[in-house]
Amino acid sequence: MLSNNYMKNIFIAGAGRSSGALIRYLLDYSVGRDITVTIGDASLDHIKTISGDHPNAIPVVFDVNNASHRHSRISEADIVISLMPPHLHGLLIIDSVSLKKHFLNASYINDEILSLHQSAVDAGILVLCECGLDPGIDHMSAMQAIDRLREEGCELKSFKSYTGGLIAPESNDNPWGYKFSWNPRNVILAGQGTARYIMDGKYKYIPYGRLFSDIENVDVKGYGRFEGYANRDSLSYRHHYGIDDIPTLIRGTLRYQGYCRAWNVFVQLGLTDDSYRIEKSEDLTYRELVRALLPSHLKGGSELEDVARLCGLPVDGEAMTMLSWTGVFDDIAIGLPNATPAMILQKLLEEKWLLKSEDKDMIVMQHRFGFIRNGKEQTLISSLVVKGEDSTNTAMAKTVGLPLAMVARLILEKKINLKGVHIPVKKEIYEPVLKELVDFGIGFEEFED
Amino acid sequence: MLSNNYMKNIFIAGAGRSSGALIRYLLDYSVGRDITVTIGDASLDHIKTISGDHPNAIPVVFDVNNASHRHSRISEADIVISLMPPHLHGLLIIDSVSLKKHFLNASYINDEILSLHQSAVDAGILVLCECGLDPGIDHMSAMQAIDRLREEGCELKSFKSYTGGLIAPESNDNPWGYKFSWNPRNVILAGQGTARYIMDGKYKYIPYGRLFSDIENVDVKGYGRFEGYANRDSLSYRHHYGIDDIPTLIRGTLRYQGYCRAWNVFVQLGLTDDSYRIEKSEDLTYRELVRALLPSHLKGGSELEDVARLCGLPVDGEAMTMLSWTGVFDDIAIGLPNATPAMILQKLLEEKWLLKSEDKDMIVMQHRFGFIRNGKEQTLISSLVVKGEDSTNTAMAKTVGLPLAMVARLILEKKINLKGVHIPVKKEIYEPVLKELVDFGIGFEEFED
Repeated sequence: MLSNNYMKNIFIAGAGRSSGALIRYLLDYSVGRDITVTIGDASLDHIKTISGDHPNAIPVVFDVNNASHRHSRISEADIVISLMPPHLHGLLIIDSVSLKKHFLNASYINDEILSLHQSAVDAGILVLCECGLDPGIDHMSAMQAIDRLREEGCELKSFKSYTGGLIAPESNDNPWGYKFSWNPRNVILAGQGTARYIMDGKYKYIPYGRLFSDIENVDVKGYGRFEGYANRDSLSYRHHYGIDDIPTLIRGTLRYQGYCRAWNVFVQLGLTDDSYRIEKSEDLTYRELVRALLPSHLKGGSELEDVARLCGLPVDGEAMTMLSWTGVFDDIAIGLPNATPAMILQKLLEEKWLLKSEDKDMIVMQHRFGFIRNGKEQTLISSLVVKGEDSTNTAMAKTVGLPLAMVARLILEKKINLKGVHIPVKKEIYEPVLKELVDFGIGFEEFED
Repeated sequence: MLSNNYMKNIFIAGAGRSSGALIRYLLDYSVGRDITVTIGDASLDHIKTISGDHPNAIPVVFDVNNASHRHSRISEADIVISLMPPHLHGLLIIDSVSLKKHFLNASYINDEILSLHQSAVDAGILVLCECGLDPGIDHMSAMQAIDRLREEGCELKSFKSYTGGLIAPESNDNPWGYKFSWNPRNVILAGQGTARYIMDGKYKYIPYGRLFSDIENVDVKGYGRFEGYANRDSLSYRHHYGIDDIPTLIRGTLRYQGYCRAWNVFVQLGLTDDSYRIEKSEDLTYRELVRALLPSHLKGGSELEDVARLCGLPVDGEAMTMLSWTGVFDDIAIGLPNATPAMILQKLLEEKWLLKSEDKDMIVMQHRFGFIRNGKEQTLISSLVVKGEDSTNTAMAKTVGLPLAMVARLILEKKINLKGVHIPVKKEIYEPVLKELVDFGIGFEEFED
């Protein structure tokens, strides 16, 4: 429950890469209102670069593993927003529920968090997870369309949804069409496990080894053709969206064309493996590591030639050119001691896929609904494209941070009164947030086919 | 330290598949000596089928998770031998060390067990792990050869060692040349992770997805050609065997020819995946599961045809014939609820690869040492082939159980006086055990090339 004091305080845990838009929104909103924004991070300097000297900003040193830090910060707050890495949310959520403070984040919910639902209801507070971009805006926009189609009496037959955090065409100066606008480690490890979805009423499973070859083309009006690979678990969304009987549902990740075929080479080589450490990796070069990962019977040619042979790709084709560009075949020392292949690949790509200060990132999201209206099969395509301004004011930071900021405002203004543990699939949340996002240039274009 | 009572007692924890030869050896040995053999298992009936009414056998109901069971049984024993599943050894070893009783098993050692070395030395007892077949006889026979070559002043250049628990040619009535003589689950999950070895001074890594295609041919005199795939970790054996600088070392698993190519299809399909559960798997047939695992763009032909296309294999070739024989393309209900693909594959194969009562299994082990003697490159090949008598008296049970039984006898006779945590690489252990194994038809044939 909100404290009854006149003054309101929002506590933001973690001022990382994606916190800029969130913090600026809340500080702007605080002006002329009795609101303060407490920002907790390991480094005060880091907070200052984002909040400047804003009179309503209170920077604090914060260590999430320190119980007294957590207790003090959450006690003083009305709403807690966490941008910490996913595995650190647990402690914050438990404390928020017991101290009866609203809690918001942009990370995936889990069974442990769900088990707190009744406690959150009893405490009279909202714990809202998955309220960023993906997950977040994807839920909100999908539910808005699904609810509308349902109200129109349509029968939903299929739902395909793809999202990608890419580089804008005008800043795309590398053959992959990719730079890191988000946690690089997540990009390296993407898709490990088995992807699950449903197609024409049948379950489909894609083992990791085939994830980047079993892809789908996705056309986005005005932006051309992308390719999409399946996300790990599409099946649970049937339940979240109340479409348990839908025959086709797939969610996936978008990349520029060519990316998946080239990335698949890293997967086949074993360069995305994070399960074991390479002895004395610091003494190897990237080329030597590739040789160590090649089958022993392949030793006729250069590493590039042997990798091409292993993967059945032309030596001078697009994929091998992309691989070559990363420097993975070069005799440059890895330098990283006893690292996993995934850690080594991340180091290599962090240098190559660095977002330069003037680079613009680009978010692309597309939902494709197949449905029957008045006995006729139809398709609704709803697309979102958002470009960043530069490497600080990224589309990623805007689309992840603004939904959280807007929900915080709506709670303070008592426009959202939901209690318990939720994800943003309720009209009470998605309607005002999607509407306000348009003012920030984050709006979907819809057309029917 | 052995108790000073006149009467000696050996406690065997777990009377499973591999306990027959072990128990019979020790009961035979006990006759005319003041020795009893206490056999603990969940079922007394089960023990009786192995020990009969032998006067020196004491069957007891035993639950390893029950601390008072453990305490009583270990207190009364002079030597504890565990045939429990690997993850249950920890408690038994800790109790054995604190109660000062010798402990023997045939499972892999780990850091937790190694950390008890000084406590075991102080307690004056031996904790001997990896004392079965593989690990076990492989260590003993390899060390015997390595020590001998070293004494002869040879320089060891390479060591390749392969072991397989197979079916004897005369009992081989299926196209895989394989039946389960050991824990089926281990066979299904074999090789998951990344195999590591060293070749010509360079580390090599084989990701699981390539493990069954990056194989080596292994010829065994009188038994023809087998194929070998690499075990997960060959590198640590350099240290165990005191051959840290050897340029080539690989350890692997033997199968009849054709097995690996066919098994690789299961791997590529994702049927060995144990990381997620298939919703409502009980309602699917095996054929439907295969379809669910096939890429959606492959839907032109039958499941067999599409799998052949996926893996680039001829539809009527050997591998696809082997696959077909398992029934994996048949419309037979799986029946197992919410199971992982690996659990489903295990169920299918347990029916097909069942050891019939009159079937003979066969152990094949081969070490190949490359070395320089008097400036000349030479090869020493040392091979072991052991056949079982029937599905109860298997070669597997003999080769796993007899080394443990023999070491127990040698301890009672004070011929092994080693203390602390060890694996059987010391002459004090391997020499008498390898010598006695010959009397049981378990002897290596050596020749130089």
